[in-house]
Amino acid sequence: MNVANTVFLIIAAILVLMMTPGLAFFYGGLVSKKNVVNTMLSVFAITAVAIILFIAFGYEMCFNGDSLGITGHIRHLFLSGVDLNKIILKDQGISSGTYLLFEMMFAIITPALFVGATVGRMRFDFLLVFVILWSILIYYPLVHMVWGTGGLLASWGILDFAGGTVVHINAGITALVLSIFLGPRFNKKTESYSLPWVLLGTAILWLGWYGFNAGSAFGMNSIAVTAALTTTVSAASAMMTWMLLEKILKSKVSLDGICTGALCGLVGITPGAGYETTLGAFFTGILCTICSYFFVNNIKPVLKFDDPLDAFGCHGVSGIVGSLTVGLFAAKTVNGQIALSGLFYGGGIKLFMVQLAGTLFTIVFTAVAASAITTVLKKFIAMRVSARDEQIGLDLSEHGEFADAQVGESSLFSAK
Amino acid sequence: MNVANTVFLIIAAILVLMMTPGLAFFYGGLVSKKNVVNTMLSVFAITAVAIILFIAFGYEMCFNGDSLGITGHIRHLFLSGVDLNKIILKDQGISSGTYLLFEMMFAIITPALFVGATVGRMRFDFLLVFVILWSILIYYPLVHMVWGTGGLLASWGILDFAGGTVVHINAGITALVLSIFLGPRFNKKTESYSLPWVLLGTAILWLGWYGFNAGSAFGMNSIAVTAALTTTVSAASAMMTWMLLEKILKSKVSLDGICTGALCGLVGITPGAGYETTLGAFFTGILCTICSYFFVNNIKPVLKFDDPLDAFGCHGVSGIVGSLTVGLFAAKTVNGQIALSGLFYGGGIKLFMVQLAGTLFTIVFTAVAASAITTVLKKFIAMRVSARDEQIGLDLSEHGEFADAQVGESSLFSAK
Amino acid sequence: MNVANTVFLIIAAILVLMMTPGLAFFYGGLVSKKNVVNTMLSVFAITAVAIILFIAFGYEMCFNGDSLGITGHIRHLFLSGVDLNKIILKDQGISSGTYLLFEMMFAIITPALFVGATVGRMRFDFLLVFVILWSILIYYPLVHMVWGTGGLLASWGILDFAGGTVVHINAGITALVLSIFLGPRFNKKTESYSLPWVLLGTAILWLGWYGFNAGSAFGMNSIAVTAALTTTVSAASAMMTWMLLEKILKSKVSLDGICTGALCGLVGITPGAGYETTLGAFFTGILCTICSYFFVNNIKPVLKFDDPLDAFGCHGVSGIVGSLTVGLFAAKTVNGQIALSGLFYGGGIKLFMVQLAGTLFTIVFTAVAASAITTVLKKFIAMRVSARDEQIGLDLSEHGEFADAQVGESSLFSAK
Repeated sequence: MNVANTVFLIIAAILVLMMTPGLAFFYGGLVSKKNVVNTMLSVFAITAVAIILFIAFGYEMCFNGDSLGITGHIRHLFLSGVDLNKIILKDQGISSGTYLLFEMMFAIITPALFVGATVGRMRFDFLLVFVILWSILIYYPLVHMVWGTGGLLASWGILDFAGGTVVHINAGITALVLSIFLGPRFNKKTESYSLPWVLLGTAILWLGWYGFNAGSAFGMNSIAVTAALTTTVSAASAMMTWMLLEKILKSKVSLDGICTGALCGLVGITPGAGYETTLGAFFTGILCTICSYFFVNNIKPVLKFDDPLDAFGCHGVSGIVGSLTVGLFAAKTVNGQIALSGLFYGGGIKLFMVQLAGTLFTIVFTAVAASAITTVLKKFIAMRVSARDEQIGLDLSEHGEFADAQVGESSLFSAK
Repeated sequence: MNVANTVFLIIAAILVLMMTPGLAFFYGGLVSKKNVVNTMLSVFAITAVAIILFIAFGYEMCFNGDSLGITGHIRHLFLSGVDLNKIILKDQGISSGTYLLFEMMFAIITPALFVGATVGRMRFDFLLVFVILWSILIYYPLVHMVWGTGGLLASWGILDFAGGTVVHINAGITALVLSIFLGPRFNKKTESYSLPWVLLGTAILWLGWYGFNAGSAFGMNSIAVTAALTTTVSAASAMMTWMLLEKILKSKVSLDGICTGALCGLVGITPGAGYETTLGAFFTGILCTICSYFFVNNIKPVLKFDDPLDAFGCHGVSGIVGSLTVGLFAAKTVNGQIALSGLFYGGGIKLFMVQLAGTLFTIVFTAVAASAITTVLKKFIAMRVSARDEQIGLDLSEHGEFADAQVGESSLFSAK
Repeated sequence: MNVANTVFLIIAAILVLMMTPGLAFFYGGLVSKKNVVNTMLSVFAITAVAIILFIAFGYEMCFNGDSLGITGHIRHLFLSGVDLNKIILKDQGISSGTYLLFEMMFAIITPALFVGATVGRMRFDFLLVFVILWSILIYYPLVHMVWGTGGLLASWGILDFAGGTVVHINAGITALVLSIFLGPRFNKKTESYSLPWVLLGTAILWLGWYGFNAGSAFGMNSIAVTAALTTTVSAASAMMTWMLLEKILKSKVSLDGICTGALCGLVGITPGAGYETTLGAFFTGILCTICSYFFVNNIKPVLKFDDPLDAFGCHGVSGIVGSLTVGLFAAKTVNGQIALSGLFYGGGIKLFMVQLAGTLFTIVFTAVAASAITTVLKKFIAMRVSARDEQIGLDLSEHGEFADAQVGESSLFSAK
């Protein structure tokens, strides 16, 4: 075991774990005050489900051997008999126990992301069962295909440093599918519960993203330092871009706006964090934010689906754009392990086309599989709460609680 | 100094320090809106008291030499003359300065835990003086007995990896004693101030627990990785168990419920974090949560004492059960340093009996000492606020503040 | 690259980054409920501005070469052509990429500090442009003068371990200048939005301070451990001192009080964290808090300027006192790299006089430069919002948002 690298990866894992409650605050702050508990609980409860599944068999589906480039083999239920001290990353001196812990955290935060598209109307039971099926049929296979030994997309040469396809495009497309199946809320005009919680969520997510992106170097080295720097720069340029767009187009800068902007930059740099130059990260943040901004503000209102917290508009759109920018800004001078540089760093169009193919594959695979799961599951478990429960709010109808004492008191006097 | 191990232990110490404000949010979110400031302030103020005491003489009472297996010797007030660069953990290359910093954080969070039993009615002055006496007469001796060189319980062969007896049973029993001496609140039916704060507290506590449990290996090694993994798994299985119990018995899953569940799993795995297998941790989380759930929901209402935030129900009950499960699930294959495996790993009943003896000793020692301190202290300082102050709320009566502007405004119009 | 030291410094950088949202919560919790969004947004938005400026040319102004002891040279815009893997701190094995990332975080939090003096009346546009000019004309030169190779104050022999002059005195004096230029609020009596947010901010700031102070050793070594310990002790003695002063002088201990107390201790120990003994840190915390306490409670009310959140009273006053205490408590036995011990550790009055000179220089330089920037900038951009906007609150007038749904609802019924 390399002690310093293991210290780094364990801490990175803890930072990624914190992203899930961070997301609970981000989403919970944005919803209406009658759906706060449901939103936070939905995000946080996934933690338990995803951890148990991952140690039960998920880790082995992702990383133990290979079948057809699509999945690993389940040989040891609940890790019984797995040697957790075995060094499986030779270069970094990382044991399987440490590696497992780090990867486990990705399996928690990814399904939590698509909760943003379902708030205010999805039944809690449906969500939990969907997360189980989605983990087995979509997430573990996709991890194996992109990061597993012998994985299909890995064999194409796709570059996904920390989860552009596996995490963000996957979660974004799943969010889109769920929001279409669910249908829109009855009342789409709601006031955010609390913006300080949105800022706290953003701060925790940003913090956790260093674990996510720098940790994906699986040790402390020049690639990890690069990833920490590109992550910071992309978040900043994205935040600045959203701020300028709001200032120019709406004349007022909003707190939830700059938070969303920062997240778009963090999403966008994820696949390229360990491959891009500082300047590449600067432009990645700008490009992703511009696309997400106009999607959310101009395109989404025209479309029919209802994605209240922009799980698709942020993670899907910036995830797709970010995955493609790797084909533009990746540079062998930054990371000697890659086979091809991007378009602007002398590698020609080839890497861009590979990224495009991998991105399209992920979109189609996730869209088809998520639709199939939803279609079948709906036959067994009701997906949407009743109209009355939606009006009452899911905090009371699904969980019998109010977000805070003030909400409880105001609810006594109104039909909220 | 081993640099990597010191990095790990310093960061672990910082994570444990964060648990105290985390606990302030957890407890503050659960109390009624008129007792939020008092609850948070009581928890947080302990930080200053415990740090000063620990550097004044507490560290030496815990770890400098031995008298009768019960206490160390005070030789250097305020660390004057102590060589903070001396390597005192040879295997891990940890200096006394680093070790002291890590252990200091445990002396802060432990007394903060029992504040949960006293909310809404204990005078702030009484609390502070009690914490000082409790530190000197209960906490430092118990640390010495379990973890100090020549300590009494250590000589029995008790296994307490990160503080099952020292921290959780101790705090839980003290909470029980204080709640009995204080008597019940006049109005036990109160609405929680704010559930998002409860979730934030839980998230910070969970995060800090990695410092607590993995840090108790005093360096990064296979035991620390094991502790990080068992901590994660026990928290998840505990949270899942509470969720299923609520779903089955109450048909609704609550946010404060799954938070409490997660904490029970974290408490329960604390003594065995570096000794148990992944599967052992899985069952430890389940067992502890079942016991805490039924204690809080079915046994506590029948008993007469009033422990509003279940400091005993969570830390006491899960601490006791967790301490005993070490006798079931400890395995020499996980940790070669232990003399005996538990019942389910080929070690027979012996370790279980040792754990039982150590647990009973801790319960009796803490109960007697805490009762004695309280009995004497009550003669000098009033313990409970007046009935009128309790009705007004301790935020206003003890501190002259409201939790937030909304509470302040609503209080202008009512006799809250 | 020294892996363990790099792990430490990257994590320290992340902790310092978190201080900026931490400060947003601290400040946002203290302001009136109609200025929460503006306060948090102002603090957080600085993150993007400061990062972009720092990679564009700020890093080179601080650290690349030297002109007249006042500034470095800008040679590489946006770090193009900078070798980020070059080891620039030989002893610690730290690369320029890692060093840059750590120093970047100081350039974010410092301007965020002076927002506290401007809340409730400064225009958001003015703030952003001011931050840009202030970074170029005050912050980068001061960093170079104190920490850069060939810097003016460095050549005097001033000791500033982690930013007493560069960060706290600088921010405190800038806060004073801005509050004088802005003039007082119309309504100085406001109720704090939410004390739990104040506590959260304090906790995050305290946490981040370990990155700030211990990280300023640029690696894990005995100095870093010392800094972690002195930081903890000074925060605790400061918090205890504020608590005792409130108890004695006002008979009630307040939550925002002990939070402010802790921060004074953290500010005060910053310049001496790696130079002072534990006992020195204990007294530093006490001295700083006494000065800040009496300034805020007794002197400020008599003066005419309006610094609502005591950016000067805390960072300025405790920064100045802390900078001077280095001349009293620094000890060569603690840190062999310093040339002189302080007055109480056998070094005579000399170091104290150097600290006094450096402190006075920083005060005068910052006061003159900040006044000049403000005077000029006011001619181009309005500095203060209209009286009507101030009455409405900056959340609505500047950003079109409310802090939370409850504030929004209550605003519908009143002229708040």
